[in-house]
Amino acid sequence: MYAITMAESGGPENMSWSEVDDPQPKAGEVVIDVVASAVNRADLLQREGNYPVPPGASEILGLECAGRISALGEGVTTWKVGDEVCALLAGGGYAQKVAVPSVQVLPVPGGVDLETAGGLPEVACTVWSNIVMAGHLSAGETFLIQGGSSGIGTHAIQVAKAIGARVAATAGHADRLQTCRDLGADIAIDYHDDIAEELKKATDGHGADVILDNMGAKGLDNNLTALAFDGRLLIIGMQGGVKAEINLGKLLSKRTSVTAMGLRGRPVEGPNSKARVVAEVRDNVWPMIADGRVHPITHERFSMADAADAHRRLDEGGVVGKLLLVNPDA
Amino acid sequence: MYAITMAESGGPENMSWSEVDDPQPKAGEVVIDVVASAVNRADLLQREGNYPVPPGASEILGLECAGRISALGEGVTTWKVGDEVCALLAGGGYAQKVAVPSVQVLPVPGGVDLETAGGLPEVACTVWSNIVMAGHLSAGETFLIQGGSSGIGTHAIQVAKAIGARVAATAGHADRLQTCRDLGADIAIDYHDDIAEELKKATDGHGADVILDNMGAKGLDNNLTALAFDGRLLIIGMQGGVKAEINLGKLLSKRTSVTAMGLRGRPVEGPNSKARVVAEVRDNVWPMIADGRVHPITHERFSMADAADAHRRLDEGGVVGKLLLVNPDA
Repeated sequence: MYAITMAESGGPENMSWSEVDDPQPKAGEVVIDVVASAVNRADLLQREGNYPVPPGASEILGLECAGRISALGEGVTTWKVGDEVCALLAGGGYAQKVAVPSVQVLPVPGGVDLETAGGLPEVACTVWSNIVMAGHLSAGETFLIQGGSSGIGTHAIQVAKAIGARVAATAGHADRLQTCRDLGADIAIDYHDDIAEELKKATDGHGADVILDNMGAKGLDNNLTALAFDGRLLIIGMQGGVKAEINLGKLLSKRTSVTAMGLRGRPVEGPNSKARVVAEVRDNVWPMIADGRVHPITHERFSMADAADAHRRLDEGGVVGKLLLVNPDA
Repeated sequence: MYAITMAESGGPENMSWSEVDDPQPKAGEVVIDVVASAVNRADLLQREGNYPVPPGASEILGLECAGRISALGEGVTTWKVGDEVCALLAGGGYAQKVAVPSVQVLPVPGGVDLETAGGLPEVACTVWSNIVMAGHLSAGETFLIQGGSSGIGTHAIQVAKAIGARVAATAGHADRLQTCRDLGADIAIDYHDDIAEELKKATDGHGADVILDNMGAKGLDNNLTALAFDGRLLIIGMQGGVKAEINLGKLLSKRTSVTAMGLRGRPVEGPNSKARVVAEVRDNVWPMIADGRVHPITHERFSMADAADAHRRLDEGGVVGKLLLVNPDA
């Protein structure tokens, strides 16, 4: 098969579409003939050599895909060859084929074409595992999403609205603030302003019960200020660095928590596993998509062989929703 | 009645046993004739003017008590005059009488005398609300308690053992390390050593699933190092300061959380309320005490009028368990 490979870490120019061995399914795995994958910010970090691949995972980039099952490993009974599916991957999506544990595979949600489904598993699993499974966001609470027009952001706004939360979203440009509102955000905040102050103004001083943050160190203190009593800050990205000063007194006085957890390093099965996240997404988020409360947002489609161009596009900024990588002849 | 009052914040010499107005029960409250209260570290901070009293709470020190109910406010049907009880207070325990919402009142647990019960509600509610309600400590997990010989520590070791956890406790002196072992700690670590390193050595590299910490800033980074994958750090004290550098990358790579929440400022009723904590303690911790799995640990008893001496005693260090304040003629 062909896949995007890298002789060494570095810029997009190091990515090439090359012939490699086909993946073989281990026990409990399926092989998917990939119709589409998608670009996640973690892919850019991995490309640069700043995101170590978890033990046992493919060295090939790509944390999600959609396609057709072409082979079953020993013991797999939940799927059959020919099934159209999408999947959460620990790697290997930028390829014509990928092997994945069957518990990380999802049906294509109702009303979504197979290509578009290639950009859904990573955002859906990241958002649900954080804002609901870890953050316990519930109806009537206030949810703040930092980076509301990103792939994660456009999905999180809609899911939080479907849960019944009041949603505030940040973005850095008038067009993208409007996009957040169009997707359902009740409050849109320019991130060049004081976000905590603007949020408190818009919520009668309440602040955010749950925050989903992609910046890490930069803005940590402002996020703690923005939290309501009993609030939960969930950090999934470190675009603003990893080291910050934290005032623990601010946490204690408002009874708040800071949680940072990725999906990729989780075990396949068990209490905090990918299998459990995928099962909850199938049960809770897929119905929201099927009945139209949540729409997948795609910014642009690239041929998989041109994945380097998609990386350059994400680096440029201003992408609203997902960048898909499509295998033209799949 | 008489109570400990303070003309101004400062040292123990500012505390005096003075006559003040009796408290009157509001709707939903009871008045307790106090037999005993106990000293908590938060009392020392409040005495110094470093712990603002929550709105509506008594200005008098004292976060817990035991005694006999002497009056019922409007609508109270769950208790009757003469009941021997103990209670979690937002303040007012260093006195002959205190008014408290009836939902913060507990029966005296089986096998415990009324005086000793005066030192139980604060530790029991703090430990349970943190390690179980927030930290979800479960059987087979590893629990690290920082300050294992303190009032909180001696209780937490026993409750965590009763839950079925493997317990590691820190202390600063050989005698107190032995006390931790005697109370059930599987692992005792001198806090002058590298705690994270010692814990990992003793747990085959696993670390702590849940940490209950009283130091705050000092040791924050070491606590993050000590956490296992999916670990939860719960901070209840800031004896080592409030401001620290935090490496969020350490949190993300191990999928961990930092939570800091006090009891005192919580609402009386509702989802994260004192009422809910008290109800869970009654259902879960009181049976552990009644059947002898958890023993109250009392270091020394003082006459309530000599509360200043008890404060000096806690400040000296080396106190194992609780310091009780007893009303001699109650």
